Amino acid sequence: MTYSASVVGGSGFTGGELLRLIDGHPEFELAQATSRSKENKTIGNTHPNLRHSEVRFSDPAELESVNVLFAATPHGVSMEQIDAFQDAADTVVDLSADFRLDSEAQYDEWYDGHTRPELLADSEYALPELNRENLAGADLIASGGCNATATILGLLPLFEHGVLSGDEQIVVDVKVGSSEGGAGGGEASSHPERSGVVRPYAPTGHRHEAEIQQFLGVDVSFTVHAVDMVRGASATCHVFPDGPVSKGDLWGAYRGQYEDEPFVELVSGGGGVYRYPEPKAVAGTNRAEVGFELDPGNKRLVVFSAIDNMMKGSAGQAVHAANIALGIEETAGLEFQGLHPVGAP
Amino acid sequence: MTYSASVVGGSGFTGGELLRLIDGHPEFELAQATSRSKENKTIGNTHPNLRHSEVRFSDPAELESVNVLFAATPHGVSMEQIDAFQDAADTVVDLSADFRLDSEAQYDEWYDGHTRPELLADSEYALPELNRENLAGADLIASGGCNATATILGLLPLFEHGVLSGDEQIVVDVKVGSSEGGAGGGEASSHPERSGVVRPYAPTGHRHEAEIQQFLGVDVSFTVHAVDMVRGASATCHVFPDGPVSKGDLWGAYRGQYEDEPFVELVSGGGGVYRYPEPKAVAGTNRAEVGFELDPGNKRLVVFSAIDNMMKGSAGQAVHAANIALGIEETAGLEFQGLHPVGAP
Amino acid sequence: MTYSASVVGGSGFTGGELLRLIDGHPEFELAQATSRSKENKTIGNTHPNLRHSEVRFSDPAELESVNVLFAATPHGVSMEQIDAFQDAADTVVDLSADFRLDSEAQYDEWYDGHTRPELLADSEYALPELNRENLAGADLIASGGCNATATILGLLPLFEHGVLSGDEQIVVDVKVGSSEGGAGGGEASSHPERSGVVRPYAPTGHRHEAEIQQFLGVDVSFTVHAVDMVRGASATCHVFPDGPVSKGDLWGAYRGQYEDEPFVELVSGGGGVYRYPEPKAVAGTNRAEVGFELDPGNKRLVVFSAIDNMMKGSAGQAVHAANIALGIEETAGLEFQGLHPVGAP
Amino acid sequence: MTYSASVVGGSGFTGGELLRLIDGHPEFELAQATSRSKENKTIGNTHPNLRHSEVRFSDPAELESVNVLFAATPHGVSMEQIDAFQDAADTVVDLSADFRLDSEAQYDEWYDGHTRPELLADSEYALPELNRENLAGADLIASGGCNATATILGLLPLFEHGVLSGDEQIVVDVKVGSSEGGAGGGEASSHPERSGVVRPYAPTGHRHEAEIQQFLGVDVSFTVHAVDMVRGASATCHVFPDGPVSKGDLWGAYRGQYEDEPFVELVSGGGGVYRYPEPKAVAGTNRAEVGFELDPGNKRLVVFSAIDNMMKGSAGQAVHAANIALGIEETAGLEFQGLHPVGAP
Repeated sequence: MTYSASVVGGSGFTGGELLRLIDGHPEFELAQATSRSKENKTIGNTHPNLRHSEVRFSDPAELESVNVLFAATPHGVSMEQIDAFQDAADTVVDLSADFRLDSEAQYDEWYDGHTRPELLADSEYALPELNRENLAGADLIASGGCNATATILGLLPLFEHGVLSGDEQIVVDVKVGSSEGGAGGGEASSHPERSGVVRPYAPTGHRHEAEIQQFLGVDVSFTVHAVDMVRGASATCHVFPDGPVSKGDLWGAYRGQYEDEPFVELVSGGGGVYRYPEPKAVAGTNRAEVGFELDPGNKRLVVFSAIDNMMKGSAGQAVHAANIALGIEETAGLEFQGLHPVGAP
Repeated sequence: MTYSASVVGGSGFTGGELLRLIDGHPEFELAQATSRSKENKTIGNTHPNLRHSEVRFSDPAELESVNVLFAATPHGVSMEQIDAFQDAADTVVDLSADFRLDSEAQYDEWYDGHTRPELLADSEYALPELNRENLAGADLIASGGCNATATILGLLPLFEHGVLSGDEQIVVDVKVGSSEGGAGGGEASSHPERSGVVRPYAPTGHRHEAEIQQFLGVDVSFTVHAVDMVRGASATCHVFPDGPVSKGDLWGAYRGQYEDEPFVELVSGGGGVYRYPEPKAVAGTNRAEVGFELDPGNKRLVVFSAIDNMMKGSAGQAVHAANIALGIEETAGLEFQGLHPVGAP
Repeated sequence: MTYSASVVGGSGFTGGELLRLIDGHPEFELAQATSRSKENKTIGNTHPNLRHSEVRFSDPAELESVNVLFAATPHGVSMEQIDAFQDAADTVVDLSADFRLDSEAQYDEWYDGHTRPELLADSEYALPELNRENLAGADLIASGGCNATATILGLLPLFEHGVLSGDEQIVVDVKVGSSEGGAGGGEASSHPERSGVVRPYAPTGHRHEAEIQQFLGVDVSFTVHAVDMVRGASATCHVFPDGPVSKGDLWGAYRGQYEDEPFVELVSGGGGVYRYPEPKAVAGTNRAEVGFELDPGNKRLVVFSAIDNMMKGSAGQAVHAANIALGIEETAGLEFQGLHPVGAP
Repeated sequence: MTYSASVVGGSGFTGGELLRLIDGHPEFELAQATSRSKENKTIGNTHPNLRHSEVRFSDPAELESVNVLFAATPHGVSMEQIDAFQDAADTVVDLSADFRLDSEAQYDEWYDGHTRPELLADSEYALPELNRENLAGADLIASGGCNATATILGLLPLFEHGVLSGDEQIVVDVKVGSSEGGAGGGEASSHPERSGVVRPYAPTGHRHEAEIQQFLGVDVSFTVHAVDMVRGASATCHVFPDGPVSKGDLWGAYRGQYEDEPFVELVSGGGGVYRYPEPKAVAGTNRAEVGFELDPGNKRLVVFSAIDNMMKGSAGQAVHAANIALGIEETAGLEFQGLHPVGAP
């Protein structure tokens, strides 16, 4: 079966990834890609990996009817356009933060006033490993944030398998690529200033703490650094369990959680160069790598989680969620396994 | 139909790419991956993008019978092992330089003594855009060299369409990534020394001149620089035609040559950021981007050609050739279109 | 003795380099740094290597009287402000292209109409290795362009020592860092788009051809590529001499030209990792590395030249010229020798 | 006055930095540079920034008498050679870990058996900001480890000014460049594998914890990641004080500690691109940048510290210590202020 799909905000980075994934998806057919700034230009003019396509960006004010609409617009746009989106599509997958949180109170704590708070309770958060069952047949899906996704995937097994209760001290130190800043970067994102950095760009107060709190029920101490790559998010979670934890407990928790998950891979020790999760190993893919190490001397557990922020952290996760919502094979269109060797993707 | 395939030398970089391509190929099934140094280890231990596989490297001395064998061994190995390869497989695709040249004399000019010169005339050079017709049914295929491939694809239309005769002055200035040095790099390839370079690593006398001479019938002045990327080869060909050449002539030649080619894309001017061929736009893909610009003041024509040296420059081209040899859809297993944005792949 | 110095346009990249050099110069004292956009902010707010300074940017409309004024403004500004500059300073060193060419005709061929053409003949071009004798006591100096400087330094000995006459075919293939684009980069200069590139950014018609033509008397076929570094320009000159040239001829020409030059180093062969000129070996310094290789088979001579475009290609060369103009030790303030190892500076 | 200086182990990375610093030092004169592997080759053959020097590496078995000897040898060598070093020099500055810890028990906990444990109590640890007073006149100095230096500089004011007592939970998440791995890197350090990484290379149990424990009296939870740069170490310290801490308390502590320190700069907030410590802002310099941010919601204090691991983290700190030991101006030879813009140094 073929489902028609559209991308609103197709000239941005995540919009481009959605277009790439739809282009290679066995059951999706691109009906429309909108862009205000690049209207009438081919999608390949902006995204050189799509030069083979003849599709041109169209006006977002004139949406076609489709089975599924992906909204890759800046935060705040989807809540304004949601009626138009839902009129046009049976299933709306929003990649912004607009519908990720459950309540207006939570939203107001981290963002500025929500214009459609009544929809917050109805939307389904798309981190399929967390709530796959709610996504089947969903009509409004909020795809999880990149840094939150990396963190939740790293910590989830510890909560689900009783290693942590939620009262523990957890520090999450995240390193991200420049694509997180989006296509319209300013001075700090220019190549001469952004190259080679280890830059604390969100020392405290990153909004993704809200998603983590909502889904894991724990407050994490969150700090995000910009490093020199374009794609990728790597979360190192420093966790201090109340009691002793063994390697066996950990393997039990992580295998139990993820052994049937198509997009999560446990990478922890073993030989070779790639012994722990690394974002470059998953660049371009929808995979997350998760691993851990015990530090008995400090009663600490270190969890590593690596994703491609453009894929598992946004566009890939959105397509994964849409696949589930529509009843398609979960991995459809998400088969790319990444490259080796590869530089700084 | 399913064809069994094996990779000899699977722990190197091009070996890993072959394993990735076979893994995703709709009609190939991996029968064996050999590696002397990593015998009995999983292929994912070396190539983290293949962690989902349970295949382990085996001893190259014990080859299984397969439909197609890819040899990704250092120069000189295939000519020693060719009988064993041909005993094991109906079709042998060699990625080394051993069987690329047509005569012993040519070989001796650029390399050291060939041990099986009688096979040189029988092997087919695999640059499908050059000699597709000879590859169908071929049983010994020599996959073209990366820098030669980029250069030949850039210049071929000028020879085929009468713009050049072969007497012209042609300078080819190539920029390549670190994967061209292979997996066993020494001091010059260590990250601290290799990072950030613009390094003349083959100022003159690069062996790929031989392939270019053989197939285009022209001596080119060839210089290769190492630059800071892992994958990619970019050839800038500075050409001085005898008489005047118009843009129309050029578009005619390049469109005429490549309009039906599935893996060559003309990229020349137009708007946007990506106006000329760039290796990062094709990283991970089997595509070549080719473009040109006229410099009337200097009576010069500048041709740009960009490939992924690991793909169109080796493993991708080898699979493409195998597809043709076996009568499979040419693009099978080579559909990946690349990423945008992407850093230094 | 101490000379007062000012920098007009101090918040740009070359302005920042001038401030750094003045800060470390034994005989210069910074009197003023102007910036329209950053007025009243400390210079360290923009240039983190100058955080120890308490100087603040001031209004360029109110220039103080100084011994030497460095103008690091965009092309076209200096010709408008030249009277004010000359009123304020005994010696004006302009880093833009405004006063590099000798005649209005030449200027008009490559740029748009000059408003003060009568000054063109009076300004001295600052490539000290070319015309040191004219710089002593000069009151208007035009610091040479980065890519032209690299090229001229590479080729100069061949013209001065009779290896070339000016009729030969010369291709110059240049690779440059992102700082050449200046501090106000747009979409193409954003980190996600600019990372990892080998991008033909001036395929033909680069304006620095004019400077090369003026000083070497030869038309070169010039192509500039952007590569992944911030600082650095590397020029590879492919030269086709009319008759035979020996290594001895070349060493004679290059040693003869440069053996007493404090800022030119011959790097050609020898062992180790760094056998030819590389921009990262000179990053942050005022040095140029120059080397060569013969390609007898193609009757070609390949010359490599590497500089830091921000230093020998602009601010360093400007200070060098000012030192000569004022009769100071030539190397004063320019002693930094660079780092090893170093990444992509 | 001029002091003769020698470098044992001069062909390594820190050895090269020592040679560079001695070369530019107003009161040091290089007497000898030893290297077993590069004996008789010029120091510029290995370190291209020292090509102007005619010094050649000599045999480490034949040490000349000097005022100060810098030992840049692998861990374990200095304890074997210490008698020869002390016979040759009045002052020995060791850059390895051999003499950093105070007691044999501490040493054995983190390293393998010490052969000269009686010297542990006599050597002075060189982190001048910590124990400047002990360095004057010292004859055996152990220069602090890079990651320990970054961490101690970040946390020291909190302990000295009563913000922390030593019982608090402290997580230190460090990001380092590839030069920390030294000049003889293996497969994991090759450019294709090491490029673009965010790689947990010391997830737990890093030996620098020992130095931190010894000098701050606190156990820190330490994790080190390799990121894509050559030089630089950035430590992010996540600290959980027992009671409330205000910004004023912090500024008081940090200003009180560092306002007279020539090599520590407080960088915390303010405008511009560089608002927190970043290693690229200090590349090539002996400066440390230190800054902080409060996270009241998590009762957390985040401290950032950035150094050049080759300089403040090894060779620069060693020269700084030697300056103090010999009674020279502390900043002599260490005046370089770094570059802007700069890529991934």
